[in-house]
This record gives sequence, C-alpha cells and structure tokens, in this order.
Amino acid sequence: METRQHSQALFNWYAEKSPCRFARIIEIITYSLKSSKPQPQSEIQVQSNRLTQQIQFIIEIDRLKHVMRQTLLIDGSRRENSAEHSWHLAVMAIALAEYAPEGVDIFHAIKMLLIHDLVEIDAGDTFCYDVQGNDSKAEREAQAALRLFGLLPADQARELRLLWDEFEAGETPTAKFAAALDRIQPLLHNQQTQGGTWRIHGIRRDQVMKRVAPVETGAPELWPFVLQLIDDCVTAGYLKETSTLKI
Amino acid sequence: METRQHSQALFNWYAEKSPCRFARIIEIITYSLKSSKPQPQSEIQVQSNRLTQQIQFIIEIDRLKHVMRQTLLIDGSRRENSAEHSWHLAVMAIALAEYAPEGVDIFHAIKMLLIHDLVEIDAGDTFCYDVQGNDSKAEREAQAALRLFGLLPADQARELRLLWDEFEAGETPTAKFAAALDRIQPLLHNQQTQGGTWRIHGIRRDQVMKRVAPVETGAPELWPFVLQLIDDCVTAGYLKETSTLKI
Repeated sequence: METRQHSQALFNWYAEKSPCRFARIIEIITYSLKSSKPQPQSEIQVQSNRLTQQIQFIIEIDRLKHVMRQTLLIDGSRRENSAEHSWHLAVMAIALAEYAPEGVDIFHAIKMLLIHDLVEIDAGDTFCYDVQGNDSKAEREAQAALRLFGLLPADQARELRLLWDEFEAGETPTAKFAAALDRIQPLLHNQQTQGGTWRIHGIRRDQVMKRVAPVETGAPELWPFVLQLIDDCVTAGYLKETSTLKI
Repeated sequence: METRQHSQALFNWYAEKSPCRFARIIEIITYSLKSSKPQPQSEIQVQSNRLTQQIQFIIEIDRLKHVMRQTLLIDGSRRENSAEHSWHLAVMAIALAEYAPEGVDIFHAIKMLLIHDLVEIDAGDTFCYDVQGNDSKAEREAQAALRLFGLLPADQARELRLLWDEFEAGETPTAKFAAALDRIQPLLHNQQTQGGTWRIHGIRRDQVMKRVAPVETGAPELWPFVLQLIDDCVTAGYLKETSTLKI
C-alpha cells in the first residue's frame, strides 16, 4: 500500500514538475499497453506468459556481469563489472541508511540502485570523464531502457522505467541519496587503489569535485567525509591538484 | 517503525522457537556490546567512529567479488562470483515478488539476499554437492559472520547477524522465499549453459531435486515451473537421469 501511495505521489509530482518527461512516460505507457493488449486466454495461460516474460528478463540481465566499468576492485586486480557494482551500492544503502535525509525511502533507493545500470547491457558503461561519450549517453540509454524493461510484463516494465527515470532525473530525495552512494563508492575504490582510475586517466581534483557534487545535497551528512577523503588523496599524491593557469 | 516491529517479532520468535540459537545470539550481542563499550566522547566523534566502521565494512565486502561460485555465467564464458550472484537474486526478488507467499516481506528478503553470501569472504563458497565441504560449512561460516558483521557498529552488526541467521535457519516465510530464489537462479544458469555445472560434475536429477526442494514450500507458485525446467533439462540431455539400481 505504501508503495502504491509512493507511486501515485511520484506520478503527480512528474505531471506537475516535469511536463516534458511526463509526456514521454505517458507515451511509453500507451505504447506498452497497446503492445501487450490482452488476448483471450485462461488465467493459467496469463500467469504462465507473465512468468515466461519475467524469466526472460532474469536471463537477459545476466549480461550486466560482462559490462566492465573503469573502476578497479579494491585489490587492484581487475576492473569492476556493473552487476557487482550495483550489489555493492545496495549494501552501502543498508549500511549507510542512517545518513539518508528526510524523505528518502530506503527500500525504493535499493531497488533503484539494483536496476540503475541495467541499460548498460545495451548502451555500455560510459566513463564519467569521457565528454564525447556522455553526449550520446542519454539517447543510447533511453533506447536500452525501452528494450530491457520492455521484456517484462507491461505493469512491471512501467514500474522499473519510472524507477530508472526517477534515478536519472535525480530530483527526489531518494534519487539524490542513491546518486550520492553511486558517487561515493568509486571514490573509495580510487582511494583504496592509490589513485586507481584517476592516475590512469590523469584526473584532477576539480574534475572529481564536480563528479561528487551530488553528495552535498543527496547525503549532506556524508559530505564532510567526502571532502576529507579527497583532501587526503591529493596530499597522498593519488589525485592531481587542480591545475592553476599562469598569467 | 515497521522494521523495528519486525525485529521485535523475530526476537520473540527466536526466544520461543530456537532457544539454542537464541542463546548463541545473546552471547554474540553481549560480546559485541562489551567490545564496543562507549568511551566518553563528543557526539561528532561518536558519529565519526560509526562512519569509520561502516566505511571499513564497505571496503571489506569488496572481497566478495573475488569469491567464485561453481555456476557459469549464462554465456558460459566464466564462473560467477558471489557478489554479482547476490545482485542477480535481489533483482529476481523484485521481478518475481508477486509469487511470494503470504507473510513474505520483500524488502526484508532483498536485504537478506544482498548479505546472505558475505560469510564466503572468509569461508569460501562451498559447492552444494560437495559432501565433505558441507560438513564444516556451518562452523566456518559462523566464524566469518562474527568477524564480518562485527566490523559494523554493534547495533548494525546485530541486525545483519539476525538477518543472516534467519536466512540460514530457513524457517520464516521470508527466509524460505529467499532460499527458493537462491535455488532457482543456478537452475536457470545450468539450463541456459546446456547443463553447465551439472555436466562438469556429473550431477543427476535426484541430486538436483533434493537441492531445489525448498522452492516447493518457499515459492509454491514457482514449483511447477521448476519441475518442468528439470524435466526439459533431462530430456535435452543437460542433466543425467537418476541412476536405477539393478537387482
């Protein structure tokens, strides 16, 4: 019941605050309702069809275990994949739940974190500091969401699409908290691997600061920790200081 | 509040139904309370100490990404690790939530699935058909739980330990449903990899039937699907038929 109220509130919020996004969602819902128009069939058949779709989705998402991120595992032995990354974030949400600001629904955040990277199965992982890759990211991921969530029965496809859109929009307290965790985790990995990805790509403090900025509003209680961690990494030489232009 | 009520109910249930297990938990709680006896310090210090412990836990659990299971990924390219397996199960809980019997708390099941394999960081993954390995499994995993959950502040260590104990005991509807998903996922992987682990180890239908038995009570609505899947696998030659003794 709580989930239903939450969905209703989200629906109203979308309609009011983001009319463009709302229109796109309505379009997707209309499309998926049309394409899943019920055929006359027995209740058992309906359930069996639903289960077939759900199992197909479960099989398909196994591919997320092959999507490699830039981040190294903490022992530095290999890059992390997006499935194990999503698991790590979900456990972080449990361990750090007490720092969630008012209005955050932790269960909703965990579901969001579990599915937030699924689109990478089709769209691939885009390195956060790759400017060119990030230009086309939104369109590639939207197409992927349509196909992947569309494997599920229409009602579930809608539910996961709304969840993913909420995460991407990053406007609700829950989405902001989820995004904060998604920024803190690679930070920890880079610190633990003595600069890991930062050193490989010559990343500077100002780039990291821009990247982790969502923590300040998404999880304000964790912000001082993040600032301290970045300071420590610069001091230790894991992260380059922001370059200063000479006049 | 709901979570608190749930914990209280679980606590009472333990005390009544499993006095031995309950006594062990009380022992752990007493130990962890003693070892985390509060020192006189400011509120900021307390919070900072909590966060330090939580971050240490988050860093430590990265090691689950190195624990390799017997199960192959669906494309057969490599074995699955326990972190990505836990992620897969948690998403399955979302996708298959409608088949959860009455009394199952899906959020609780997801948390359970996210942490159920953490003990393997110390204890390793024990192949389910390895009789010798399974003899010492309980003791090794109990030690691991003590160390790993013990990295967290005492209240959280207790919460996760209760969650893991509940999963291991497999007596509540939520634990039974979680266990059912944990049995269905490798079944799907073995079917998708034309017998995968079964063929490597020469596993027979009766062994698989014993292994998946918890699905019948944990997720009865999924039981016919499981039986059909096993039949199909035997027919396709992915799984050996139960051997019949000749007189």
